Amino acid sequence: MPYEIPFDQLGARLDAEPRLRAGQQPPVLRAVAELPQAGPHELSLCASLRHLDSLRATRAGCVLLPARLAEIASEAPCPVLLVADVRQALLRAMELFYPPEPTREEPGVQPGALVDPAARMDPTARVEAGARVGPGAVVGQRTRVRSGAVVEGGARIGQGCEIGPNAVVRACCELGDGVRVGPGTVLGSDGFGLVEQAGALRRLPQVGKVVIEEGVELGAHCTVARATLGETRIGRGSRLDDQVHVGHNARIGERVIIAAQTGLSGSVVIGDRAVLGGQVGVADHRVVGPGAQVGAKSGVGRDVPERERVAGIPAVPVRRWLEQISLWRRIRKLDRRERPK
Amino acid sequence: MPYEIPFDQLGARLDAEPRLRAGQQPPVLRAVAELPQAGPHELSLCASLRHLDSLRATRAGCVLLPARLAEIASEAPCPVLLVADVRQALLRAMELFYPPEPTREEPGVQPGALVDPAARMDPTARVEAGARVGPGAVVGQRTRVRSGAVVEGGARIGQGCEIGPNAVVRACCELGDGVRVGPGTVLGSDGFGLVEQAGALRRLPQVGKVVIEEGVELGAHCTVARATLGETRIGRGSRLDDQVHVGHNARIGERVIIAAQTGLSGSVVIGDRAVLGGQVGVADHRVVGPGAQVGAKSGVGRDVPERERVAGIPAVPVRRWLEQISLWRRIRKLDRRERPK
Amino acid sequence: MPYEIPFDQLGARLDAEPRLRAGQQPPVLRAVAELPQAGPHELSLCASLRHLDSLRATRAGCVLLPARLAEIASEAPCPVLLVADVRQALLRAMELFYPPEPTREEPGVQPGALVDPAARMDPTARVEAGARVGPGAVVGQRTRVRSGAVVEGGARIGQGCEIGPNAVVRACCELGDGVRVGPGTVLGSDGFGLVEQAGALRRLPQVGKVVIEEGVELGAHCTVARATLGETRIGRGSRLDDQVHVGHNARIGERVIIAAQTGLSGSVVIGDRAVLGGQVGVADHRVVGPGAQVGAKSGVGRDVPERERVAGIPAVPVRRWLEQISLWRRIRKLDRRERPK
Repeated sequence: MPYEIPFDQLGARLDAEPRLRAGQQPPVLRAVAELPQAGPHELSLCASLRHLDSLRATRAGCVLLPARLAEIASEAPCPVLLVADVRQALLRAMELFYPPEPTREEPGVQPGALVDPAARMDPTARVEAGARVGPGAVVGQRTRVRSGAVVEGGARIGQGCEIGPNAVVRACCELGDGVRVGPGTVLGSDGFGLVEQAGALRRLPQVGKVVIEEGVELGAHCTVARATLGETRIGRGSRLDDQVHVGHNARIGERVIIAAQTGLSGSVVIGDRAVLGGQVGVADHRVVGPGAQVGAKSGVGRDVPERERVAGIPAVPVRRWLEQISLWRRIRKLDRRERPK
Repeated sequence: MPYEIPFDQLGARLDAEPRLRAGQQPPVLRAVAELPQAGPHELSLCASLRHLDSLRATRAGCVLLPARLAEIASEAPCPVLLVADVRQALLRAMELFYPPEPTREEPGVQPGALVDPAARMDPTARVEAGARVGPGAVVGQRTRVRSGAVVEGGARIGQGCEIGPNAVVRACCELGDGVRVGPGTVLGSDGFGLVEQAGALRRLPQVGKVVIEEGVELGAHCTVARATLGETRIGRGSRLDDQVHVGHNARIGERVIIAAQTGLSGSVVIGDRAVLGGQVGVADHRVVGPGAQVGAKSGVGRDVPERERVAGIPAVPVRRWLEQISLWRRIRKLDRRERPK
Repeated sequence: MPYEIPFDQLGARLDAEPRLRAGQQPPVLRAVAELPQAGPHELSLCASLRHLDSLRATRAGCVLLPARLAEIASEAPCPVLLVADVRQALLRAMELFYPPEPTREEPGVQPGALVDPAARMDPTARVEAGARVGPGAVVGQRTRVRSGAVVEGGARIGQGCEIGPNAVVRACCELGDGVRVGPGTVLGSDGFGLVEQAGALRRLPQVGKVVIEEGVELGAHCTVARATLGETRIGRGSRLDDQVHVGHNARIGERVIIAAQTGLSGSVVIGDRAVLGGQVGVADHRVVGPGAQVGAKSGVGRDVPERERVAGIPAVPVRRWLEQISLWRRIRKLDRRERPK
């Protein structure tokens, strides 16, 4: 049975200014949906003028609109909730309509799971069919190890973590509380440290750790290499999207955001609250300062100062990068004018 | 026992014009191989002048040649089949010599597989050792779930599908008939939708679906994120190579081709029959029109019109991109001439 | 019990010139650690002036220093070992302190592993819980197949190999001796060979092999596609980092180094001892000559001659690429001066 929230109550919960036109009935809401799909009992949202046509045509019961777009409220065929920040309001609404379900999942070692007798698994943890936990591994309270995941002997996992299906946590890893590891992600792969010796490539023994602090979330198919010496570390509350690569000895600060397919080379340092777009590459030993922002697809070959915004290959301050692009256009035009045809 | 196909018959099947020189015996063919490796009972092919030396040296029994290269037919030491389109002919030849084998694989739940009693698995489907199918999951006729694959409870998979070894199909996924999912590919990872609240990063609850339409094929280690609301969709007959990332709420049309390591951000739209090269990135909410072509390694920051061909970072029409490259050369030359040395 | 190595003995083993100042006691070393973390029984290293502050502050028992930095030896608060090449010395030191442990791992089929009775597995090999080895597969002496790995029927694996947790070795693969396959890596995914036929996309049957020669090491989450015909081959002693993609029919020479997230399209050839940086893309059929070096994030669209160093998109000789970057700066400055403000 879905939750039912009347229009007025929803408005109050979202700190919204309700706009109900004459003759409009206040709806009762049960879910959230996108403008084109939403029905009469669903809340939707319109965050930009780009979606004005969808707004006019929607069959939603109610629409969230940012206060700065108040003048288009009358274009909506339904009641409107004006809010200061649509994404904040959406987050709250989604938490109302889709509260974390009280889990019906049984704790303990499920049939088909393999937990070594020498593992220290809390009885409230859950290890699913086909998952394996090795000798001496620690699995904290309420942590869930999904189907097919491998937690090697010696790894330490905190409380309330989620180890996704087919993920791998190697022996050298320590995970704090509330860490989420996406499906297929590998923590503790060997660092890529090579030395040429007598004509052959030798790999430096990799004896360091991976430390993932409290509340970090990693997407699917990430790879985090263990340190050669010391540790590779991801700081508290950071978020990595899918297919991100973190090289050996990298240190990622707190509250960092890294989008999909980005790669950090060995010993890179990323400061707190930095934001890296998708498909970014950072060369080894480079430092990206706290609060810095790196545009998608950039190649970072020099240190990026605190709070700087950079883009391009090689990455330069965004302003310079935009200048380059517009210069190109002008050069091209000049060239066309001057070339005899 | 391999198939044996006489030269004449093969020519007829491939709509080819046979070229048998005086004294040459028509060969009997049993397989297809590349020019340097092919032996007297193997068919080979030469699609470009680039391989003329290999053609001259081949020991193949017979060579496919495009009609436009008819003048080099006499360079081949063996009989030749001239065809309008070498790749079409190759496809037909390979289907003749390597027909899909009547499967000797037993249907049903194999020893070591874990299928929940509450799953709805067709008796003609096959679930292999170490694979798991959760409660309420639907697995259609003749679908094969390979070793180590995880099909979570609630997922729905059509008929004649192949779920590769160690692939993951999360609960929120619906797959049409004839879908192929490569080894290790993850369908339904969490979307990367973050909201800052009281100084911390919160993830928007992700409650949407992933819909993979009929006949779609995905390579190995792809990640397809579920929608925040609504659905992430890949249209009928599309093909994704290895390590492709599809963000939440992306919509990929029909017959789209996406090469390896390309990433689509959230809410991207790719029109029917578009072609994206490898390592391309598309920024969130961008639209790539039907039939458009995006060059390898491009960064798409603006919408790409229907049938347009673009390349570069940021992506511009290919013509402009080539202009840029040649302008560079001219500027550099000018600069060298003018600089005092 | 850790190894203990006295300062003098260590110096001799590393061909180092010891620097022990008056009053300094020669330390006994037990491990290797980074400058900031190292304690009085640990060896550390300082490879560049960049780390001078850390050198001054270290509590390490002894520090490795390259001979070319001999003048800063007196800045270290501890005895110093001067060496010709710090990385070589580090490799030797790590091999002294962290010798490959005599394995305590039991050989044989571990509980929870599934080895087909028709597999040819050497009794000294080890297959771990949750791993599967199919009918007709060959697994050589002392090879370890880690938890959750899938070795399909027909695959052939040499002696002393390591198949990482959740890796997949498909039926079409042949691995030489001493090959290491990282966690989650997929060998033998289907090649991406498409042909349009009657309006639909058809995949060419992929009937070729993957051959991995002796001593090759692949990181986590690599994908190596099988050949359409013939083979995809990685030559002896080559090293691939995490998330590398190798397209169908590619041929990688011996001793090649490929950094993370790089992708090779179909039929690419990489010569012996070439080095490719991270996130590089190489277009199909391109040849990178022996000993060539390709800078990170480059897009290789033309053949690269032997020993050439290239960078950029499209990749050009490094010298030209640097010229381009500096030209940009000058153009921008000129432009600023000339623009009326």
